[in-house]
Amino acid sequence: MEKALRHALMAQARAEAQLGWQEGGIPIGAVIATESGEVIARGHNLRVQNGDPTSHGETQCIRHAGRRRDWGELTLVTTLSPCPMCAGTAVLLGFKRVLIGERRSFQGAESWLLEADIEVDCLDDPGCVQLMQRMLSEKPDLWLEDIGG
Amino acid sequence: MEKALRHALMAQARAEAQLGWQEGGIPIGAVIATESGEVIARGHNLRVQNGDPTSHGETQCIRHAGRRRDWGELTLVTTLSPCPMCAGTAVLLGFKRVLIGERRSFQGAESWLLEADIEVDCLDDPGCVQLMQRMLSEKPDLWLEDIGG
Repeated sequence: MEKALRHALMAQARAEAQLGWQEGGIPIGAVIATESGEVIARGHNLRVQNGDPTSHGETQCIRHAGRRRDWGELTLVTTLSPCPMCAGTAVLLGFKRVLIGERRSFQGAESWLLEADIEVDCLDDPGCVQLMQRMLSEKPDLWLEDIGG
Repeated sequence: MEKALRHALMAQARAEAQLGWQEGGIPIGAVIATESGEVIARGHNLRVQNGDPTSHGETQCIRHAGRRRDWGELTLVTTLSPCPMCAGTAVLLGFKRVLIGERRSFQGAESWLLEADIEVDCLDDPGCVQLMQRMLSEKPDLWLEDIGG
């Protein structure tokens, strides 16, 4: 998957994150894409909106993808380094690749992905960093709850 | 938490698993309990029923528990050794203890729990084994999908 396509997919995940922030929630979004760049599912964190602690951006996106058997050909694109729940879910399903927006705001369980031979690529996207930094500044307590703090 | 209470809680998780099997789904169930044995949430695998690959017994139970900050005082009781998604979720939230019905039918990501200093106790419950073995015998393909196969 070429670099330009990776950035284009991240822009779609970032749009999901922005939608979540506009709804009063945590600004983390995700999309799932095929190797040619077709987006088959989208999602964003809904913990505040739905009161569900398992509704992270990645898990919501995977819920929308539904039951399928081709996870090993798909890329999970997420605006933030995935937490233990989301990394564990990626390992369970066996994604081909996890494309990460940024890991400056939070360092997730990326080692679990690597140990499961999932390709990991971090784009260090300034837009993703900006969204998270705004939340950490304006709603720090909300974030602590999201990561089990 | 005394041994008799652990077994009583497992019986409640097993009842959830049986409910899932009666609904045509995967027979894995879970409850979340306080140290004194009060059950605050229940759930069972709903992947078949809801078409949601993230609806495992443990994640459904955690959804029902909702937003809270006392995970570190709670025990997650599950009929089967937790898969990477469910173990990762337990690590994220930081449960005090994960009580497992059996690990004969499937060996999950228990090492992640231990590395996160979560107490792990397996009861090797014959009723839990029986439920899983019946499914593995009657619906083997359904199970492979559940563990990302």
